[in-house]
Amino acid sequence: MTARAPARPAPPAAALALEATLTEEVLTSFISNETLRTGRSRVVVGLSGGLDSAVAATLAHRALGARGVIALLMPYRQSDPASVKDAAKLARRLGVRTEVIDITPMVDSWLAISPKADRVRRGNKLARERMSLLYDRSAIHDALVLGTSNKTELLLGYGTLHGDMASAINPIGDLYKTQVRQIARHLRVPLAIRRKTPTADLWAGQSDEAELGFTYDDVDRLLYLLVDERYGRAEAIAAGWPSRFVDRVRRRIAGSQYKRRLPLIAKVSQRTIGIDFRYPRDWGT
Amino acid sequence: MTARAPARPAPPAAALALEATLTEEVLTSFISNETLRTGRSRVVVGLSGGLDSAVAATLAHRALGARGVIALLMPYRQSDPASVKDAAKLARRLGVRTEVIDITPMVDSWLAISPKADRVRRGNKLARERMSLLYDRSAIHDALVLGTSNKTELLLGYGTLHGDMASAINPIGDLYKTQVRQIARHLRVPLAIRRKTPTADLWAGQSDEAELGFTYDDVDRLLYLLVDERYGRAEAIAAGWPSRFVDRVRRRIAGSQYKRRLPLIAKVSQRTIGIDFRYPRDWGT
Repeated sequence: MTARAPARPAPPAAALALEATLTEEVLTSFISNETLRTGRSRVVVGLSGGLDSAVAATLAHRALGARGVIALLMPYRQSDPASVKDAAKLARRLGVRTEVIDITPMVDSWLAISPKADRVRRGNKLARERMSLLYDRSAIHDALVLGTSNKTELLLGYGTLHGDMASAINPIGDLYKTQVRQIARHLRVPLAIRRKTPTADLWAGQSDEAELGFTYDDVDRLLYLLVDERYGRAEAIAAGWPSRFVDRVRRRIAGSQYKRRLPLIAKVSQRTIGIDFRYPRDWGT
Repeated sequence: MTARAPARPAPPAAALALEATLTEEVLTSFISNETLRTGRSRVVVGLSGGLDSAVAATLAHRALGARGVIALLMPYRQSDPASVKDAAKLARRLGVRTEVIDITPMVDSWLAISPKADRVRRGNKLARERMSLLYDRSAIHDALVLGTSNKTELLLGYGTLHGDMASAINPIGDLYKTQVRQIARHLRVPLAIRRKTPTADLWAGQSDEAELGFTYDDVDRLLYLLVDERYGRAEAIAAGWPSRFVDRVRRRIAGSQYKRRLPLIAKVSQRTIGIDFRYPRDWGT
């Protein structure tokens, strides 16, 4: 494609606007159908005190009832105390079973042998420790692990593989962050959670937008063009987006694709897992 | 399909026999191509002292040279000391960089708050702790995590999701266990490793075959019929396999399918990750 691509008509300004009631219906049906067809009636969800897990848990509560949701709070010693408080408050409000597991001893045992670990390595360790606990509790409770990654994070690779990206079913993985905000409003998620600065809470003062270097409002609109509307580089630039921003986002999407795929297996037989042996997840259950 | 399915001609007795030289070529090319195309030149592999990781590491050594392989030994206090010794010996023989990380402190911190955890939960915790360390080291060394799960384990679901099943590239995931043995002989993997009883070494005296309730020789031949030759239940029984064994293996394959798939995302947009947004892993790298 050349840099002189003809400009395509811009999508309507409201392209990211959700039909909240309809979306809620689709997502709650998804949760109940996908849970029940595995023969289970419950999900476990890690509640961080942030918006995404609050929305996922609230949807699961509407889909499966209070007995169908187990909330796991997994603070680390450096977690913002307000996060844990907001998470506990939401769980109480929903009336769901809540378990609190302090991950400090496990993480600090690792930190003791990894004193040079930078913030990214520490963040990944926290995320994977939480995954390990979530899956352990899911086995105890015969429950599915509910995913809480949104489409923006997933496309930008802004998450930990085999950490917070791990789940059985994810009701919000096709919603951009700004769409999660819309549905949160519709679901009446508490204001304390809706108003806080988005953060992975992996270190004090962390903020998603500061770390990413752009706002969710901007990147969601660009991601929508590039991914949903399949705009090429030149078309996005012709539509008014700065080339540096377009390039940066395109690099992030492509460079994190490995996080959104299964391990690659060397094919030597007639039928290879992940290549031509790919039944649905709940095949035969 | 009825129970009176016409018998299909049995596949040749040697159906699982490998062309070892050709297979080695395919697998070493796979490792070097898939590593180099991501811009990297190294893999990290967890060496357990068992056959599968020994074969994967030896193939990687042939593909990338001694500098292209970093071996991680991650013993737990209950691991068989012979396992660690055999793993270290193999790493020395290959001349690859070796790091030893005792996972006891991290796992025991968890065990302290999970005193009732049974063997399965403990086994999963060990596997996920090792995954977490492997991915951490892979980031430090800018290396890919090399998978070591074989096709038998993967099909039976005999592995830990987000634990030993996690990797970037897996050279042996399309080889049945009995085929891994053939390639091990061809690669001259040390006899001490080739002759030991297959075990996940998660507790003392554990043996794969005792735990599974059948031998690899038997199940590999049946899996080959069911998966590679697409035999139905009745056809497998008509071919001489006991119905109970057939049912058991079919149930294991179907019931573990969720471990071989990505998280399921609720579709609400034009392009959804894992559904209609599925570029290759190394797209754009």
